[in-house]
Amino acid sequence: MKIIDPWGSTLPSDYTKIMKDFGLEQFSKNMFPKPNRAMRREVIFAGRDLKIISDCIKNKKPFYALTGIMPSNEQIHLGNKLVVENLRYFQDQGATVYILIADLESMVTRGITLEEAKKRALNFHVPAYIALGLDPKKTFFYFQSENIEVVKLGFEFAQKITLNEFKGLYGVAEPGRIMAAVTQAGDILFPQLKQKIPGIIPVGIDQDPHIRLTRDIVSRFKKYKFFAPSSLYNKFTPSLDGDLKMSKSKPEYAISLPEDLKTVKKKIMRALSGGRDTLEEHRKLGAIIEKDMCFELLKQHLIEDDEELQKIYEEYKSGRMLSGELKQLTYEKMEEFMNNFNQKLEKARKEINTLNFIKF
Amino acid sequence: MKIIDPWGSTLPSDYTKIMKDFGLEQFSKNMFPKPNRAMRREVIFAGRDLKIISDCIKNKKPFYALTGIMPSNEQIHLGNKLVVENLRYFQDQGATVYILIADLESMVTRGITLEEAKKRALNFHVPAYIALGLDPKKTFFYFQSENIEVVKLGFEFAQKITLNEFKGLYGVAEPGRIMAAVTQAGDILFPQLKQKIPGIIPVGIDQDPHIRLTRDIVSRFKKYKFFAPSSLYNKFTPSLDGDLKMSKSKPEYAISLPEDLKTVKKKIMRALSGGRDTLEEHRKLGAIIEKDMCFELLKQHLIEDDEELQKIYEEYKSGRMLSGELKQLTYEKMEEFMNNFNQKLEKARKEINTLNFIKF
Repeated sequence: MKIIDPWGSTLPSDYTKIMKDFGLEQFSKNMFPKPNRAMRREVIFAGRDLKIISDCIKNKKPFYALTGIMPSNEQIHLGNKLVVENLRYFQDQGATVYILIADLESMVTRGITLEEAKKRALNFHVPAYIALGLDPKKTFFYFQSENIEVVKLGFEFAQKITLNEFKGLYGVAEPGRIMAAVTQAGDILFPQLKQKIPGIIPVGIDQDPHIRLTRDIVSRFKKYKFFAPSSLYNKFTPSLDGDLKMSKSKPEYAISLPEDLKTVKKKIMRALSGGRDTLEEHRKLGAIIEKDMCFELLKQHLIEDDEELQKIYEEYKSGRMLSGELKQLTYEKMEEFMNNFNQKLEKARKEINTLNFIKF
Repeated sequence: MKIIDPWGSTLPSDYTKIMKDFGLEQFSKNMFPKPNRAMRREVIFAGRDLKIISDCIKNKKPFYALTGIMPSNEQIHLGNKLVVENLRYFQDQGATVYILIADLESMVTRGITLEEAKKRALNFHVPAYIALGLDPKKTFFYFQSENIEVVKLGFEFAQKITLNEFKGLYGVAEPGRIMAAVTQAGDILFPQLKQKIPGIIPVGIDQDPHIRLTRDIVSRFKKYKFFAPSSLYNKFTPSLDGDLKMSKSKPEYAISLPEDLKTVKKKIMRALSGGRDTLEEHRKLGAIIEKDMCFELLKQHLIEDDEELQKIYEEYKSGRMLSGELKQLTYEKMEEFMNNFNQKLEKARKEINTLNFIKF
């Protein structure tokens, strides 16, 4: 079985193979009402136990959606944006949203002090997640280091996990990573300590080992009667040079949130294009859209309206729209998004004290 | 390098070799004022950084002594008695004593729930430690699961420990044991978060990996300016059949606290004796004292007065005292000790609410 390391940089290139190897369910946009942009466009491609969540939505039964923030530096990326948009989707469908600040994890895997993590989270990550569209009234935050219940769950779970299992799931098994992973399992199940309801964890596919670990744990601690967490997987936003995943290991091909617009413009202009080599050829053959990273940005992130996207697709595909024009359009959409994000970020920063931080 | 597994049952038979392998200092009873029974009789045989503690005592500077309670079943053993007596010794020399209830450890290594651990600790272990002679006014207790500061230290420390190092120290490296060990390092250093003072940890030699791990950690987290923990090692109380360590894996040769007196009597009568095969031979050659497990009990645990012990030694060695007489004497001393322990245990149980439990 292929191992995906959620902390590493080796990544699967074949989503279909991944699905088969890990026993994921294929996602279909008909599963949920009013699918969001990522759902409609197959950016969401798989999940686990999705029916239980779809039933909660249909029958208006309570469920939760959860993610964690790694307060490692004062930037997030477009993958975080996808996760937050999925959380917002479930929030609109009735979910209570939990967002934990994984400060114990950032300490045990990267040596970031709890003080520094708290500062960064309050100053940037939490406001940024709100700026990306969460409803502050229905979103609950906590710090791992303040949540002794989560820590206790982690210790309890660790008793029934062997080192070999851990290596099988994660490929690596260093002390810090083991502690981070069992604590994360505690986070994922924590909302069920109060109320036994299903929950869904929207993640990038590289985070699946955490989901599998947690599901294994649920089956070993039957006394708790936990629902195994459902999960929802998005594809990666590709690197602007066409590689599978945008990553800060190649910063010249990655866009961060926030990022200054001059740099963003340069990056977009330099992005891998689906345009042909000559104007004549382009007009004649049209663009190779699958290769075009700007179109991918529009599709995954920047154009909400399906008809608008379809129109651009046709114009570009037919050769009527040139690659320079598509890049200009992408930049304008990105500029609008980034300005909007920055504005909302500032607003959320000022309102940080009004957010729901869980007290322990 | 020989590996000692603090959770296992393989044990070193050669204390001198151990001292050399692990770089321990030889203990001498001249190091500390008014040495206690175990110190005077070479039951204490080694330590680390003992001079810093001896200086604290001489110069009346503050220091601490610490041990942990594993609330795994409602019995303790004679090894715990030695540790408590050493704590009491340091208490009398000015130390603040900390006793932590290792409930996270008993959960993560043995699956004992926190509720069960708390019940057992309050009903038995804590009163038993008081019954063994600690001054309740100068002794501070806490539960690991309530001490988030200790947990945080464990997570911080884990970042700078590799799996291979862990295996080198402990021989094994399962997730639960890793988490227990780094948390224990947090316990050992916790008193220094409030006040940077030296501390000493009296232990059986099998617990040395924890001491080494903690000392390694201190050298890697210089920002804390922790004193590396000093340690003091006692030999094991031998199994009554002459094996190196009394252990519940051979219950017929082990005495627990508490234990009913009838059973104790049987065990003592069956213990390996240094008496000769015939009365005539015994009177002529005298006992082989090194072989005699009852004499070892008297020496390690039951006779406080050196002259009294010396007299018995001479009587028995010369053959004037018979092995049956020594056994009878040992039983009487044990009966006195056990009755006394039970009485004090009941008293301490009633006074459990007056003890110093640290509040968090």
